Amino acid sequence: MIIDCHGHYTTAPGQHDLWRKSQLTAFREGRPSPGYPAISDDEIRESIEQNQLRLLRERGADMTIFSPRASAMAHHEGDERVSGEWARACNDLIARVVGLFPETFIGVCQLPQSPGAGLTASAAELERCVQMGFVGCNLNPDPSGGRWTAPPLTDRYWYPIFEKMVELDVPAMVHVSSSCNPNFHATGAHYINADTTAFMQFIQGDLFADFPGLRLVIPHGGGAVPYHWGRYRGLADMLHKPPLDEHVMRNVSFDTCVYHQPGIDLLFEVIDTGSILFGSEMVGAVRGIDPQTGHYFDDTKRYIDKLGLSEADAAKVLSGNARRVYPRLDQALRARGL
Amino acid sequence: MIIDCHGHYTTAPGQHDLWRKSQLTAFREGRPSPGYPAISDDEIRESIEQNQLRLLRERGADMTIFSPRASAMAHHEGDERVSGEWARACNDLIARVVGLFPETFIGVCQLPQSPGAGLTASAAELERCVQMGFVGCNLNPDPSGGRWTAPPLTDRYWYPIFEKMVELDVPAMVHVSSSCNPNFHATGAHYINADTTAFMQFIQGDLFADFPGLRLVIPHGGGAVPYHWGRYRGLADMLHKPPLDEHVMRNVSFDTCVYHQPGIDLLFEVIDTGSILFGSEMVGAVRGIDPQTGHYFDDTKRYIDKLGLSEADAAKVLSGNARRVYPRLDQALRARGL
Repeated sequence: MIIDCHGHYTTAPGQHDLWRKSQLTAFREGRPSPGYPAISDDEIRESIEQNQLRLLRERGADMTIFSPRASAMAHHEGDERVSGEWARACNDLIARVVGLFPETFIGVCQLPQSPGAGLTASAAELERCVQMGFVGCNLNPDPSGGRWTAPPLTDRYWYPIFEKMVELDVPAMVHVSSSCNPNFHATGAHYINADTTAFMQFIQGDLFADFPGLRLVIPHGGGAVPYHWGRYRGLADMLHKPPLDEHVMRNVSFDTCVYHQPGIDLLFEVIDTGSILFGSEMVGAVRGIDPQTGHYFDDTKRYIDKLGLSEADAAKVLSGNARRVYPRLDQALRARGL
Repeated sequence: MIIDCHGHYTTAPGQHDLWRKSQLTAFREGRPSPGYPAISDDEIRESIEQNQLRLLRERGADMTIFSPRASAMAHHEGDERVSGEWARACNDLIARVVGLFPETFIGVCQLPQSPGAGLTASAAELERCVQMGFVGCNLNPDPSGGRWTAPPLTDRYWYPIFEKMVELDVPAMVHVSSSCNPNFHATGAHYINADTTAFMQFIQGDLFADFPGLRLVIPHGGGAVPYHWGRYRGLADMLHKPPLDEHVMRNVSFDTCVYHQPGIDLLFEVIDTGSILFGSEMVGAVRGIDPQTGHYFDDTKRYIDKLGLSEADAAKVLSGNARRVYPRLDQALRARGL
């Protein structure tokens, strides 16, 4: 069984995005949000079958850990109420996808974060979603959308959501959203920078002493971290921290959203296979075909297949690690005899 | 001849840093800056001989393109006047190092940038330094120190310094300074993020159509870029830009400040050797010895030596590319028959 840990519902029916637009317009004009539009099961089915499901089958994966479109979370828009409505709408839509394709998708939720707001509402929404069968959440380390006004992830500001994650035994993927700072292209700079930033925060702090059971996935192959693994090992040493394997990597995993063979080769050369989860971010940031290979850039399973991993390592990366990091996914699969 | 393109004067005599502190105190208290202290040639000699010069010899390099300590530029402190005084003090000290060790060091200057200020003063300081024999500058894409309030490097805001660089035929290294944003560790996040951010800005924009002769060095091995080379090739394609080799890499080079063998291997696998300049950032961000190798993390020449490059490629990376990107360095060397 092959599990893609990183898929977003980037192909949701148009009414969903139109509602978001009208919600933000209403907010700006001081009006209450409009009612959420009707979306039929057929529309949802079509949006999935023609995109994620088709590509999943073509590429030979079985299942995707599925969450709302990351770039559309836009926690910097509106206020906490607006973010709350939007998160519920997005998560309810994911729940419908999972209900229609229960063998292929399992849910990860968006949180109703908002700049300056605490994380009580996020903890509550996470709990609501877990009750619906979700197995994790996406946590935005920069709800200001490229202004980076929140404290680092090691600050106690974040503890309410970490406490709830530990209580519910679910992980978070550390995933920013779109950027309102013109310096940062969303998928080309802001995403990768956030991954790198979060990892360095974990080195500087001592978060996992307070939360030994906390599990976080840093997407996009860990940002710049594996490429600069020597720098991070050296910085941990200069900061008098334990080696990274003890200090950070017991609690942190990277996905495989690295869109060329040399990058995947490096990832597997420096990071233990126990800390790597197969992911593609499909349909996502980079949708084209690589003229050098004739295959989709984000068909990351091809790169992994070429590594010549042992059967045991391949099993870990393609499903075992995901089942360990997302134990509620493991439980759901076991309940189906998988 | 082996040229390290990336060295900072991180070991300047203590009076220099003490003056900076008193300058900033005076600024906060509304007093004029104190007079710059006396520093003897012997003090400068000692600070270099025991550090950069010793390590350079131990590691087998001949020359360093030398600039003021990057983390101390701190353009977000004080105002434009304060930044101007500090840049001149730092650059004059570099000129003294070069005067004492003319065969080993050649100068690159710090610019008197300041948040919100234009770049006229920076262009003037660059010209002053070039008249003293400097061969380039360090350009800070985020003078706000981690708040990222300046426009992207492709914005016309930056054109006065690019025009002056082209006129003087000198390149810039794109190099941020310390971070006043607690999210970003300076050398572990802010530096690497800035490298990645700048590269993506160059993809999005069309800066080199306006400045075909502009040359920029992105340090720290290009941030996250080589590791995510497939992502950047794919994003360029999605943005309907020409291939990266045409669109960006005619004007942009990366250094080799990547502190482990697998990272250097990747860099050379995906980036043309014509676009890679040997650099170590010594004495800099990571000063320890790698327990896995028994050698300094930042002894990057060791990693390059292990690549098995052809003699022609090694000559490019270790000196030829630096002489091409910094033509005033080439002229200075030719004048000495080198």
